Amino acid sequence: MQEPIEFYFDFISPYAYLATTRIDQLAAAHGRKVRWRPVLLVTLFQAMGNQPAPLVPLKWRYVQHDLERSARAAGIPYRLPPGFPKLMVDPGRAMLWIEEHYGSDKAAAFARNSMKAYFADGVDIDDKDVLAGIAAALGVEREALLAGMADSAIKARFKQASEQAMELGVCGVPFVIADGEPFWGNDRFDQLEAWLAGQRQAA
Amino acid sequence: MQEPIEFYFDFISPYAYLATTRIDQLAAAHGRKVRWRPVLLVTLFQAMGNQPAPLVPLKWRYVQHDLERSARAAGIPYRLPPGFPKLMVDPGRAMLWIEEHYGSDKAAAFARNSMKAYFADGVDIDDKDVLAGIAAALGVEREALLAGMADSAIKARFKQASEQAMELGVCGVPFVIADGEPFWGNDRFDQLEAWLAGQRQAA
Repeated sequence: MQEPIEFYFDFISPYAYLATTRIDQLAAAHGRKVRWRPVLLVTLFQAMGNQPAPLVPLKWRYVQHDLERSARAAGIPYRLPPGFPKLMVDPGRAMLWIEEHYGSDKAAAFARNSMKAYFADGVDIDDKDVLAGIAAALGVEREALLAGMADSAIKARFKQASEQAMELGVCGVPFVIADGEPFWGNDRFDQLEAWLAGQRQAA
Repeated sequence: MQEPIEFYFDFISPYAYLATTRIDQLAAAHGRKVRWRPVLLVTLFQAMGNQPAPLVPLKWRYVQHDLERSARAAGIPYRLPPGFPKLMVDPGRAMLWIEEHYGSDKAAAFARNSMKAYFADGVDIDDKDVLAGIAAALGVEREALLAGMADSAIKARFKQASEQAMELGVCGVPFVIADGEPFWGNDRFDQLEAWLAGQRQAA
């Protein structure tokens, strides 16, 4: 049994959202599982001294157009949510708590459904009650999750997650590490797929 | 006869180099010509307040790996040139002068050959004599080009080129504008191709 591939994302990233609609099937086609790892992109940007795209008008105009075109080309429902962008701290904390108490498959489902609610349906997921509702639909106990999001150990773990990701070379999202090999961006999924196909042959 | 597609690049960009090996054939397959437009990426970065990748260690480690893997996957000879990066002012000026006096096809050939010399063969093209040699092999008069690179009107035009590109939305390289539609990066060449195919059907 091979190690899961590592999938780094931020709930705030539209490009990561596009990736969430494909990553599990892509891995499964090569007999692999996915470990979903939430990070805070802003922590990465601060460490690198770079600006997030929404704060750079010239880049942001292009990126908005590119996101719509890329989603359309892939047949993925997408629209920029009202009030975008927001710092997505609670979704990450909620996910880590769910992973700890319900396992990584449930945590991944929570992340996938939350991203879809935000980027396809315009639901504001920067809201503890909304997140608890999405989790409850997956069988997660609502009150325990609400308490878990406020737990200092969970808060610390989510804060450390971005630091640990950077130590492994993660410089943006979506970012996949498969058997030590790094792939940044949806536009590297073809190369990721070739890698997984090669590894499978070698396995 | 449709307008040429616009191909923005900087002689310093390895990703733009990868694009130079494909852009003309891609356009020709859809009955289109390419207008090659040199810019200075550093001017774009300064305007956007972002750092070039080589100055961001976390990103630069990934980018070097990604370039090698992408070149290998596409079968393009590539190695990071010694002394990389350098501010590539003379190649841009030379290209604009060649375009003015010998036409855009000769200018594109000069750019393509210069990029290949730099990124495939490790030739230092930040050198007027080297550039004059590459141009001379294409039938360009060496002494006239050397004088042209130092001409104040050419210098001013190359300086303005980056400003004009940004006014059209160019936020990085390689960047293609086809019939007003923007495509940033080698990883959008699939979408560019789909666009050109659609335009051709509509023509």
